Amino acid sequence: MPQPTSPAKIAASLPDHWSPRVIGEVDDSYVKVAKMLGTFGWHSHEDEDELFLVLKGRLRIDMEDGAVELDEGELFVVPKGVRHNPVAADECLVMLFERKSTLHTGHAVTERTRSIAEQLGAV
Amino acid sequence: MPQPTSPAKIAASLPDHWSPRVIGEVDDSYVKVAKMLGTFGWHSHEDEDELFLVLKGRLRIDMEDGAVELDEGELFVVPKGVRHNPVAADECLVMLFERKSTLHTGHAVTERTRSIAEQLGAV
Repeated sequence: MPQPTSPAKIAASLPDHWSPRVIGEVDDSYVKVAKMLGTFGWHSHEDEDELFLVLKGRLRIDMEDGAVELDEGELFVVPKGVRHNPVAADECLVMLFERKSTLHTGHAVTERTRSIAEQLGAV
Repeated sequence: MPQPTSPAKIAASLPDHWSPRVIGEVDDSYVKVAKMLGTFGWHSHEDEDELFLVLKGRLRIDMEDGAVELDEGELFVVPKGVRHNPVAADECLVMLFERKSTLHTGHAVTERTRSIAEQLGAV
């Protein structure tokens, strides 16, 4: 029988920054965790909203119309089509909810890009 | 411009137990928070998985094949079609993530049932 998991513990155990790990699925969406530090890079997801929940630390999300600052425990949804750039001045742990079709860096492929297979821990 | 929200603060401010409040949406899914105390009642969602994330306190989810105990910060997804019954020995605060089509108490309507309009704070 499946057991509960701790998103913060899994995120803390990840070896690399900006390399999300899928920890669950809810119908057509994935739950992911990531460890973030520094600047990710501008991108957008044309067809999917993206939820950020800060498990530990703080995260800034720059958008073209301004920035939001997420304190620990806070949540923000970047609407589909909105260009955004996550920035973590200090290391933070984040949980993400997004549809399975969401591409990590949008349509751009950069050195940051992780495939879904990588996010599933399959490679 | 929308600002980040604190799921735990919103959940703590809810006036009633077992009366979820929608705090966000991610495409075809709602993010909800609820304050729980006591026994909710057995039900299932035939077509939707349901994610529970404990923000504060502890929650037990009874299922026909056994129970899981979620500590603070832990996450569990009840798969579609699985009968379940959330039980909180002490008050706890929970975040839920589920598709918008999910009915609060499944196909059964009980005194616990809250409509989506109620969960949106519209009534």
